[in-house]
Amino acid sequence: MRALPSSAVTHWHRTADVVIVGCGGAGACAAIEAARGGARTLVLERAGGGGGTTALSTGVCYLGGGTRVQRACGFDDSVADMTDYVRLAAGHGCDDERIRLFCEGSVEHFEWLCALGVEFKDAYEPEKTTHPFGEEGLHMSGNEAVHPFAERARPVPRGHKPRHPGEAGAYLMRQLIAAVEASGAEILCDCRATRLVRDDGGRVVGVLARLDGADIAIGAERGVVLCAGGFIMNDDLLAKHAPQLLRCNYKAGCPGDDGSGILLGAGAGGEAINMAEGLVLNAYYPPGKHAKGILVDANGHRFINEDAYIGRASDAMLNKADGRAWLIVDNELWGKTQVPHRLAAVEETFSELEASLGMPAGELVHTIETYNRHAARAEDPLFHKSAEYLRPLQTPPYAALDCTTTGSIYGALTLGGLSTAPTGEVLDAGGTSIPGLYAAGRNAAGICREGRTYASGLSIADATFFGRVAGRRAALSR
Amino acid sequence: MRALPSSAVTHWHRTADVVIVGCGGAGACAAIEAARGGARTLVLERAGGGGGTTALSTGVCYLGGGTRVQRACGFDDSVADMTDYVRLAAGHGCDDERIRLFCEGSVEHFEWLCALGVEFKDAYEPEKTTHPFGEEGLHMSGNEAVHPFAERARPVPRGHKPRHPGEAGAYLMRQLIAAVEASGAEILCDCRATRLVRDDGGRVVGVLARLDGADIAIGAERGVVLCAGGFIMNDDLLAKHAPQLLRCNYKAGCPGDDGSGILLGAGAGGEAINMAEGLVLNAYYPPGKHAKGILVDANGHRFINEDAYIGRASDAMLNKADGRAWLIVDNELWGKTQVPHRLAAVEETFSELEASLGMPAGELVHTIETYNRHAARAEDPLFHKSAEYLRPLQTPPYAALDCTTTGSIYGALTLGGLSTAPTGEVLDAGGTSIPGLYAAGRNAAGICREGRTYASGLSIADATFFGRVAGRRAALSR
Repeated sequence: MRALPSSAVTHWHRTADVVIVGCGGAGACAAIEAARGGARTLVLERAGGGGGTTALSTGVCYLGGGTRVQRACGFDDSVADMTDYVRLAAGHGCDDERIRLFCEGSVEHFEWLCALGVEFKDAYEPEKTTHPFGEEGLHMSGNEAVHPFAERARPVPRGHKPRHPGEAGAYLMRQLIAAVEASGAEILCDCRATRLVRDDGGRVVGVLARLDGADIAIGAERGVVLCAGGFIMNDDLLAKHAPQLLRCNYKAGCPGDDGSGILLGAGAGGEAINMAEGLVLNAYYPPGKHAKGILVDANGHRFINEDAYIGRASDAMLNKADGRAWLIVDNELWGKTQVPHRLAAVEETFSELEASLGMPAGELVHTIETYNRHAARAEDPLFHKSAEYLRPLQTPPYAALDCTTTGSIYGALTLGGLSTAPTGEVLDAGGTSIPGLYAAGRNAAGICREGRTYASGLSIADATFFGRVAGRRAALSR
Repeated sequence: MRALPSSAVTHWHRTADVVIVGCGGAGACAAIEAARGGARTLVLERAGGGGGTTALSTGVCYLGGGTRVQRACGFDDSVADMTDYVRLAAGHGCDDERIRLFCEGSVEHFEWLCALGVEFKDAYEPEKTTHPFGEEGLHMSGNEAVHPFAERARPVPRGHKPRHPGEAGAYLMRQLIAAVEASGAEILCDCRATRLVRDDGGRVVGVLARLDGADIAIGAERGVVLCAGGFIMNDDLLAKHAPQLLRCNYKAGCPGDDGSGILLGAGAGGEAINMAEGLVLNAYYPPGKHAKGILVDANGHRFINEDAYIGRASDAMLNKADGRAWLIVDNELWGKTQVPHRLAAVEETFSELEASLGMPAGELVHTIETYNRHAARAEDPLFHKSAEYLRPLQTPPYAALDCTTTGSIYGALTLGGLSTAPTGEVLDAGGTSIPGLYAAGRNAAGICREGRTYASGLSIADATFFGRVAGRRAALSR
């Protein structure tokens, strides 16, 4: 939606210094910092309450460089080590300055969250998992210990989950929203931003919004911060920009993730970038022992090291195996997954298993023969799975868990959004900032640019960290 | 570069009804139609002469539905058959209306080209090739006869090469430029457009350009048509939008393909879409018999039906084989490729070959054993190569042609550009057209959206066809 010229606004129903669109992880943190920076801050939340997609998540936050939890659990981390890894995890197109700020500021960000009342327990979860199911505060949440990452950056766990059993996103957001309220910022719920307002000089000076069945104009004297999420809920935008995500059957987002924040920014001249990229998740582990199984395609061939983070493995399932993948385990390895995986076949021999799955005769048998021969020596010359997950598959019966796009759950979220400077300023296609306009969280293209390199917690860490940066910056703007 | 407000233009050095930026295939056709439509037409070409990337190409144009050449060569085609195939070849995100216009208008477009003096010889080249090396006017230029396309659309050849031995792009452009001159349109060479000019209502009303060391303002009373090519020559834009293309070591374009036309349009509010997509070409055939060899990755495993169009196979080499691919042939199949491929290894047995290539022991041997066993029955249950390319590899010595990104030539061009209506009108992110602004050719996201589904000739056919549409439309605009 193209921005409205301010000359068309006859009456400002409200004004604030900083107006923030969206009260998820990014918006809440932007609000806290803007208010603390002395700005009259107003947050517009289209839902009945704040929380956004962060509230629906595991709450894992990617933090490091030597946090209290890391040190208490005996892990030595540094800004340099974290930077080495985040460069790999960010994926293509992420600028060095953004990564530098993120890694250098990570311990401070951890402490800032703690000071808000977000608790983290000093305990490490060693199991390979999407997130600790208990209250443990630390786990290895990405590809740190995995080929080819482990050879390029020293592996250190950086997934920090707030102290809450199971999924901790709602707990995290409760603390953040309480802090917004304590900061003096106001949250206006059931209020949907519909259009930005720009003055003659191109500066964003306000927002049109829908509230109580009426359109209102809200002036923003210092700036507008777009924190309205990604676009996984908008099938038209997915078809246009990230059609492969339409192959996924579970949308990891809240209803507000319809791309409206991205379109608002584009309508004011902002450039949307990285729009083709997304994170795809088929959680074939935990149980962590499933990484000792093998993933095969419709020809019975492996295509990835199975100890990869599920985002990386799921990207390969979709793009290398064309969405036709099965996890092969023996009787000792079989376990229940969180989102249940259908048993596609169970047989006493691999020959019967490949026949049951309709694979070409002899191919799965050969794949297993090769895998077992090397695994017996704790080697995987083909895909370089780490030794701890290498063991021959030899205890019948053998099972194939359905990991196809038609038979299992593929979750997805988008990683494209407005182009921003590391300060949160929204940029146009020429790299010039749009005065008065900021963005953070999945409304922007942030630290996490590629699903195949992603680590759990990167998106929430990015949203909360750069939400703060954008809120501070907007509060200083005139 | 953001568009300049017309209020800032104090003097229009020139005016025309329609100003066209770029004189390649799209620009030339836009100019002919605009001039014929009664518009005073001015073409700005930044190089010393017109031609653009079309002049550097093979000149193959994807045409069908029953052209004179198709009929003379005994091929029965229809608009419906062509539409079925073009839907597959266009790839994700291409709108049905654009495909409908393109297919319904294809015979007329062929005749229009002929009437301009572009000759096509009524002769068919049956060899699997990137383009006929002789003067033959017709060949199967994409994945028509190949899995999985052949099962979904009736295979018909539609690659039309102008009558000229070898590469015919320069010949094609000579005819088009002669027609531009005959049409009354003026071509201004060595003139680089630097900025669009917009009036208060947002209508594009002119262009700033650099000519003879000075900046001039050129008024466009009916419209500006951007035909300035893609962005394969701009590494910064590639890093931002299509980083995988930076893995390719040959840029299939002319120096003007630096994305400046896309940025001009974006600066006037146009949305750039499909920016992550490109066509990748590693020409392991011709000779067509190379499709009887097998492509393997670093593990000695196949990953694609080798009779696929090279754009599809090369995409798989890059993305499924991670840029580490080899073509394995036996002594009878070996032949010289146009752009020579290094022999990575030549051995008497496959066991020695896999050792020479550093592949895990037994894997290539197994791959060949499986392939040969099925090929002897003219079957390929793994990748569905068509029967005519299936024959066991059994005449030593055996050779591996280096198709790695580090050892062979990967050509690339971009398939992203401005979002347009099928009329050529440039659209913003909300789908609203920018008055007075049109785009065609690789400056726009056209018919061809994906390299993995592409067919030779799609880009030139799209550029010339929709260049005409945009030129006609601009001439009618007020």
